Amino acid sequence: MKALLLVAHGSRRKQSNDEVVLLAENLKNNCVEQYPIVHSGFLELADTLIPDGIKHCVDDGATSIIVLPYFLNSGRHVVEDIPNIVNDTKKQYPNIDIKIASHLGSSNLMMDLLMTCANQT
Amino acid sequence: MKALLLVAHGSRRKQSNDEVVLLAENLKNNCVEQYPIVHSGFLELADTLIPDGIKHCVDDGATSIIVLPYFLNSGRHVVEDIPNIVNDTKKQYPNIDIKIASHLGSSNLMMDLLMTCANQT
Repeated sequence: MKALLLVAHGSRRKQSNDEVVLLAENLKNNCVEQYPIVHSGFLELADTLIPDGIKHCVDDGATSIIVLPYFLNSGRHVVEDIPNIVNDTKKQYPNIDIKIASHLGSSNLMMDLLMTCANQT
Repeated sequence: MKALLLVAHGSRRKQSNDEVVLLAENLKNNCVEQYPIVHSGFLELADTLIPDGIKHCVDDGATSIIVLPYFLNSGRHVVEDIPNIVNDTKKQYPNIDIKIASHLGSSNLMMDLLMTCANQT
């Protein structure tokens, strides 16, 4: 059973973290046939960290997990921190296939998203 | 003449800032008919700050500028810092219409972007 784990940085501002949790819920409603399990997790500054998010996916019956970095740039968090945490956590779940998706800024769709935001202003 | 100013946080990692500059160049190539002027600017940790970016737009002949926050969440930077800097800078250009677009995470297209990244993994 396929799972998505939306991973964001985390903020001291609770509302900002709540936006990510809500986005993961919306994502689940939109992709339930392809990814029946969707959770969120944070790099820091939040209650649910990445290993917690992975555990939530496994507890729900995930056999494969795509970690989806909710980050715009290939900064240190995307290049080092998230892979390091995911690789450490993987050791606890040797039978689960865990992969990390590209960060959002690398997608061609980003251009459409930027133009949509500009044109709605 | 309409301008877009792509505003990112800025990073100590030069490659991360270069990604934003490159994205602004790609954006210009994609929207030149609607927005003939496109520049980038950073909140901090980079050479070109937001007031510099606004000046670059004005120097190129912009009569209106849409500031496009390259941010995912409505954190403090989006809610307070960028509006404060833009409002302060506006005073120098009373004849230029400067507006701030919504942050990216508020767009419905974000869901499509997330699914595209997941499915390419």
